[in-house]
Parts: sequence; C-alpha cells; structure tokens
Amino acid sequence: MTHMDLHPPSSVEELKASTRVLAFDIFGTVVDWHGSIMREVQTLYPTVDANAFALAWRAGYQPAMARVRSGELGWTRIDELHRLILETLLPQFGLTHLSEAERVHLNRVWHRLDAWSDSVAGLARLKKKYTICSLSNGNIGLLTHMAKRAGLPWDCVLSAEVFRAYKPDPATYLGVAQVFDLQAHAVMLCAAHHDDLQAARACGLRTAYIERPFEFGVSQLKAVSPQPGNDLHARDIHALADLLGC
Amino acid sequence: MTHMDLHPPSSVEELKASTRVLAFDIFGTVVDWHGSIMREVQTLYPTVDANAFALAWRAGYQPAMARVRSGELGWTRIDELHRLILETLLPQFGLTHLSEAERVHLNRVWHRLDAWSDSVAGLARLKKKYTICSLSNGNIGLLTHMAKRAGLPWDCVLSAEVFRAYKPDPATYLGVAQVFDLQAHAVMLCAAHHDDLQAARACGLRTAYIERPFEFGVSQLKAVSPQPGNDLHARDIHALADLLGC
Repeated sequence: MTHMDLHPPSSVEELKASTRVLAFDIFGTVVDWHGSIMREVQTLYPTVDANAFALAWRAGYQPAMARVRSGELGWTRIDELHRLILETLLPQFGLTHLSEAERVHLNRVWHRLDAWSDSVAGLARLKKKYTICSLSNGNIGLLTHMAKRAGLPWDCVLSAEVFRAYKPDPATYLGVAQVFDLQAHAVMLCAAHHDDLQAARACGLRTAYIERPFEFGVSQLKAVSPQPGNDLHARDIHALADLLGC
Repeated sequence: MTHMDLHPPSSVEELKASTRVLAFDIFGTVVDWHGSIMREVQTLYPTVDANAFALAWRAGYQPAMARVRSGELGWTRIDELHRLILETLLPQFGLTHLSEAERVHLNRVWHRLDAWSDSVAGLARLKKKYTICSLSNGNIGLLTHMAKRAGLPWDCVLSAEVFRAYKPDPATYLGVAQVFDLQAHAVMLCAAHHDDLQAARACGLRTAYIERPFEFGVSQLKAVSPQPGNDLHARDIHALADLLGC
C-alpha cells in the first residue's frame, strides 16, 4: 500500500473546502533564480559565462545541504552555503580578484531574485481565500528581503530555519501543519519540483505542481508534463488561483 | 558600568541611519487585547464581568510562562497557555457549562484581536523605509491569523516560537539580529512595556517606547510618562513614523 492509496487525489471541490494553507516552494517556483543571477552576473562581470555560472551555483546547492544532513557541517543557513559554493566557483570563472565586499554583495543576489511575472498577482488572489506562506530552504532573512523587494505578499515567512531542518525532511512539511494547528491534508505544498511534492505527499499534505519550463533557462528546458499523485497541476500561479476558484 | 554607559541614547539622525529592522511587541503595543476580549465576552456571555475577565486572563500569562521557564512545563505555545489559564477562569466566571467547541472558539479570541487605530497605517509608513516584524511571545499561527485579519503588514512574523524562548530571554532579541545578519544596534524594539524594552537594551538593541494608556482599559489607566534609557518615546505608531522621518 503506497501513500497514494492512503491519499488519493481529491476532487477540486473537496480540495477547495479542506485546504487552509498554501505553502510555496520559492527558488524556481515563485522566483526566477536562473534569470536573475544571469542578469546580475552579465552586468557586473560581462566576460563571465553567466548561464554556466548560475547553473553551477545552483548545482552546488544539494551537495552543500547534504554536508549538513550528514552531520559534516552543523546547522547552516543557505546564505552561508551559497557563500561556500561561491568560493569554489570563483577560480573556475576567473573571479578570484573579487574583494570581500564584492563577494558579499554577489552572494546576496539570492536576496534579490525577481519573481516570475505571474507570482505577485497570483499570490494576491490566493491570499484572499487562503493563508499563504513560503516553505523554502532559504533562510528567514533571505526570504524576507526577497519578499520585500519583489512584493511577495506572504501572510507568513516559513523556512527551514524555523524548523532547523531542510526539505525534504518531514519536520518541514509537518511543521507547517503544526504551526497552524491543522491536519496535514489542510496544507497544500505548491512547487515546481516533483521530489519536493512527493515528500510532502508522503507526509499527508496536498500538492500542486507549478510548471516552470524556464527554471534552468532557455538552454536547458525542463519537462513539465503532469505526473500522477499531485492534486493539482497548474501552468503558473494565476492558473492555480483559477483552479482554486480565487 | 551599566548598559546605558555602553549604549547611550543616540541622536535621532544616527538612529535613522543605523536602524534597519523595527521589531514590534504585539499584545498591547500593536493590538488592543483588553478591548477586543471585552467586546467578544460582552457579546457571547453578557452576564460576565468582561473587564475583569479580560484582565484576569492576561494576568495569568506571566505566571504561565514562568512554568515553562522553570522547566515545570516543556516548550509550550501561547495558544496552549491561554487555554490552561482559561480553564482556571471558567469556574470563577460561571462559565463551566461551555462546550469544548465553545472553549476552543473563545481561546482563539487571541487570534482575533483588533489593532489600535493607528497601527495599520503607521506600520505601512514605517515599512517603506525599514524591515518591520513582530517579536512576540505569541505563536506563529496566532500572529499570522491576527495579521491577516487586522491587516498588519509585517515583512516577517517573528515569534518566541522561532527562537524556542520567551521574551525577555536574550535569545529572542539577539535572534532578530541574527536572522537579519545585523549587529544588535541595527534592530529597534518597539513596545509599550518598559521591562521588555529594558531587556532588549541590555542586549544592545535600540528601543522605542509606545504609549498605550488604555492597554488595561479605562478602569486601570497606565502611566506612560517617558523613562530614561529609551532612544525614542512615541505617542503611537504614527508618531514613531514621524520621529523616524517616514
């Protein structure tokens, strides 16, 4: 018996009635990390291959979190992990001349990511009916600065930092339900990543897949066809609001 | 040598330039717990002395937190502490006939507190220049529901629940600075309670006192004259925005 037998996809009417909180993955789902980093790097360091730089920085992310999960590193915020990865990239991209202030500034690009064009208005629609929050491995300060700059209208910023665990640790998904005194199925994770959604579903959360075919840029298009198990599949956050009748 | 020697009150210009985050106490400072609870109790249970009920509920708060601090209770969210106190009040106020559903609903009145009339607009002004967050012993869910209902425009909801410690534990005040990667003096605690402000000041935070003479209702006016040590003294949140040039 799999979790899909335990939690069969629900009717949309049932979902609308039972869902209270929409928790959003951030990097790639709500904001365009690849395009934002590429644009900054192109402006600041025009000789660098900005596409390769953005992809390499993001590719270091899972291995860096794995070092924390394994216990090799103690609890570490993503700001620090981004910096560790950045230090390994600078020699590869001919940027070892950067001063400490320049490195600090570049590392903070993750606080300055632009939202996808539908995110702000789509979230505002959803917020009228649901409690909307982030659920990201990004740290609270990063997510707060990002929201303030991009105008993301969160009711509440939730982060791995609150739960002292990274997704896909169940403590993060179940933590959202506990914060709001809800059963897991009253929380829906909205994300552009099937592994994140699958882990949430295994904890009893509802799930909505958001297509983001350009997450990795135009040179590396992402397959976004529907996969079984998700309660909803939406082209973007406006489409999610349409599906949920907001 | 006292902390006042280490951190003398700053000039307003220096404060404006060095402050990045305004962290707000909530109960009494941003929302009117006394009036809100009185109004609900008067409506639901007209025979009860609503003023005495509100005061007694709030009076149970510090002793309940003391049971957690002493280790008698494990980490407990304020929702649960409010319920423990409520159970002791029901016999005193002739309300033992309340059903479980009625008790749950009444306990959630703390999620439904009304903002003081200046809070929403004053915070919106401050938000244009500063990062504004809550720093309350209230739990994240309570603060989020309250903000959503009352329209409080937080950039970020911070709570004792994030730091697993209640104010005046230094972990809470210093926690705000750590979340935003700031030195303590770049954070200003804004509160209507001198003990809270004093504890924050001892951690190196800046402090702003907000007058709330009616915090305990008209039957128990609160002295609100300036006390030494606070960097700012404001009649309300609009006046704070005036002082900070917002």
